[in-house]
Amino acid sequence: MSKLATQPYKGARDCYPDQLRLRSYVFEKWRKVARKFGYQEYDAPILEPFELFAAKSGEEIVSEQLFNFEDKAGRRLAIRPELTPSTVRMLAGKYNELVKPARWFMIGNNWRYERPQKGRGREFFQLEVNIFGEASVDADFEIFQVIIAVMQEFGANDTNFSVNVSDRKLLKALLADELMLSAEQVLSARRIMDKWKKISPEDFSAMLKQAGIGEEAIKKIAEFMNTEFADLEKVVSSKILNDNKGYQDLFKLFSLLKKNGLESFVKFDPGIIRGFDYSDGLVYEVFDKNPENRRSLFGGERFDKLISIFDDSFDLPATGFAMGDITLEEFLTGWSLLPELQQSTQVYVTLFEESFRDQTLETAVILREHGINTITALSAEKMDKQLKYAHKLGIPYVIIIGPDEAASGKVSLKKLQTGEQVTDTIEEIIGTIQI
Amino acid sequence: MSKLATQPYKGARDCYPDQLRLRSYVFEKWRKVARKFGYQEYDAPILEPFELFAAKSGEEIVSEQLFNFEDKAGRRLAIRPELTPSTVRMLAGKYNELVKPARWFMIGNNWRYERPQKGRGREFFQLEVNIFGEASVDADFEIFQVIIAVMQEFGANDTNFSVNVSDRKLLKALLADELMLSAEQVLSARRIMDKWKKISPEDFSAMLKQAGIGEEAIKKIAEFMNTEFADLEKVVSSKILNDNKGYQDLFKLFSLLKKNGLESFVKFDPGIIRGFDYSDGLVYEVFDKNPENRRSLFGGERFDKLISIFDDSFDLPATGFAMGDITLEEFLTGWSLLPELQQSTQVYVTLFEESFRDQTLETAVILREHGINTITALSAEKMDKQLKYAHKLGIPYVIIIGPDEAASGKVSLKKLQTGEQVTDTIEEIIGTIQI
Repeated sequence: MSKLATQPYKGARDCYPDQLRLRSYVFEKWRKVARKFGYQEYDAPILEPFELFAAKSGEEIVSEQLFNFEDKAGRRLAIRPELTPSTVRMLAGKYNELVKPARWFMIGNNWRYERPQKGRGREFFQLEVNIFGEASVDADFEIFQVIIAVMQEFGANDTNFSVNVSDRKLLKALLADELMLSAEQVLSARRIMDKWKKISPEDFSAMLKQAGIGEEAIKKIAEFMNTEFADLEKVVSSKILNDNKGYQDLFKLFSLLKKNGLESFVKFDPGIIRGFDYSDGLVYEVFDKNPENRRSLFGGERFDKLISIFDDSFDLPATGFAMGDITLEEFLTGWSLLPELQQSTQVYVTLFEESFRDQTLETAVILREHGINTITALSAEKMDKQLKYAHKLGIPYVIIIGPDEAASGKVSLKKLQTGEQVTDTIEEIIGTIQI
Repeated sequence: MSKLATQPYKGARDCYPDQLRLRSYVFEKWRKVARKFGYQEYDAPILEPFELFAAKSGEEIVSEQLFNFEDKAGRRLAIRPELTPSTVRMLAGKYNELVKPARWFMIGNNWRYERPQKGRGREFFQLEVNIFGEASVDADFEIFQVIIAVMQEFGANDTNFSVNVSDRKLLKALLADELMLSAEQVLSARRIMDKWKKISPEDFSAMLKQAGIGEEAIKKIAEFMNTEFADLEKVVSSKILNDNKGYQDLFKLFSLLKKNGLESFVKFDPGIIRGFDYSDGLVYEVFDKNPENRRSLFGGERFDKLISIFDDSFDLPATGFAMGDITLEEFLTGWSLLPELQQSTQVYVTLFEESFRDQTLETAVILREHGINTITALSAEKMDKQLKYAHKLGIPYVIIIGPDEAASGKVSLKKLQTGEQVTDTIEEIIGTIQI
């Protein structure tokens, strides 16, 4: 029989125990912060009807990146590339009984068929956090609080990251109300503005021109891309601004951030557009401030109308974000914010010789009853081999039960890092083990 | 646009927040016990090369139950139906650097294309626990300790479940050594013995006869199926038994169980065969003792030679079990062992009117700093509507900040279950909230 390869599928990630420790660390902090803000965890199946993604996710994802296939009964299925479609499907499924506002979070695995490269595998995990049922910007402010709290929980602060924000309705104030572009031009302009950070000002203007947008308007759009929030009136008339919900929302958001001492984390950024057609209000992206790696880490948005893909009569304002594990880990590594993570076993109990097996096993039972994670030796190998094993696994304490200990009903505790050793009753010993 | 269905894919499970609480409860206890015995968590990708399952999993799973397809480059993939193949693949990938014995556990999602029915969806989660690198039955004894500890952690004891055990080598002692059946007959007999609990004694004999097994041998096999461990010598000669590794292992296992006060949890059961061809030693299955639902809950086995599917020179004795979440939840429900699970938010802070938003938000910040999971009202609705909301979500405490409280710099804490209300400084109030 030909032998199997030990590699995982291309772009998939084997997570060995030392790597799992990091994943657990991230997931636990994600859960802790989400719960601190009263969010309830849920979970969705990783396999979904294909149509669910065709209806919402961007074209690139559906046509190129989706893992999709048919089941044995011919149903078209897809492995999810993101968590939001399943989330909204689940909410729509309980639309009538939902207690609103609903604060929900989920941690889940996603798959995208991409060319594997550094930090860009085909699978990743995301934390998805949303509020449903609240249209006011107070909900977005809370989401911003959660974003900042998550980043702070990992030790990051406003020198490491920035939450950049804009608003799709404000964009409309400029493009449709101020510049009076046609609906088609608005769409084209928005897509070109989404490329702002990646192209030269010349290419930017050329692309807008090609979309049939006049010179005056192009000048205004370029000006808008460089403006501060306080200077918006120089680009868009104050009458239009003051009637604009997007402008009002941003205004209120900045005021709430300031009152709560969070203004240094957030800045207005007209270059934030987001690709998703359902975005109809605030759009936000978190950027790494690392000068060597200034890039978008994750983002979020208003998606008030997404639920209508299930029923036109459904009305469920929504806002939230999704952050990925790989990008976050790169960010934390870049800023040296990852702690050294310990394995979870505290004590290794040696087996002096076969006749001591009962004592070894009994000692382990007592330790475990006291909440101490304990391994016992399975065979009576040489003592230095046993100590080496405990050391290799990174276990801090070893308990030795030899003839002297057995005779006196005591055990010896050795702290591997220092070599210190004490002999005492198991009860006394337990008191000295730091969990 | 035609509207999307809100149902998940057939046989998939939407896990709403109240259901997720149960899943978390199960996963946390699984993790706690596995860590208590020094097992390290790992994780494998849910998508694997198809060949991995073709090489190991039973025929029914591969030909009928596997979700498999080709990626855009023509690679054959499968969504895993069980965790063991990925586990062994990962171990084989680190074969040379592995610190042995290695104690590993994982919690993962599996998919099988089955006809959906009560408690038999197409997806489920499993806890997989294995020791690698230890051939002696001391490793199996530890696995039995873990199984019993997991069940006890959920409040179950020896009146609720039983770990039934046999050994593939002991089977060989009977079939090949005592009855001198041919290799082919041994295989047939083993498959028929696996059906023992599901068929009549008449059908059992008829099937063995059809496999070309003589009348005397059939009588012996039937006798074996009904024998106690202590009476085995009545069926298999003591010479064969005493030379048999399987018999010796079972003997030592029962002795260890007895010495450690665990013998009431485990019994010898010649009907335990397990379908898996790689099993070459102890085989075990946990049974529900509920008279209304006596069935196998989960099982495990020795699989010392499985790693050779990657490399013939690899030698890694292994033993362990995998338990599923759905069967476990049914077991716990059947015995009323599931506790009422609370949601994780402790306090809801009301918003008396818009002008009090700062106080509301500040109070929440302080509560969260003290580790209290807190929701704030997003809009200043009528107070009874706000209280109703907190009640519906099952939040135990409400903090009210009205004009009186604001004037005195205090807050009022209402315990929803009793209606008790006290007014004090936030610092004092925090001391009275039971997390």
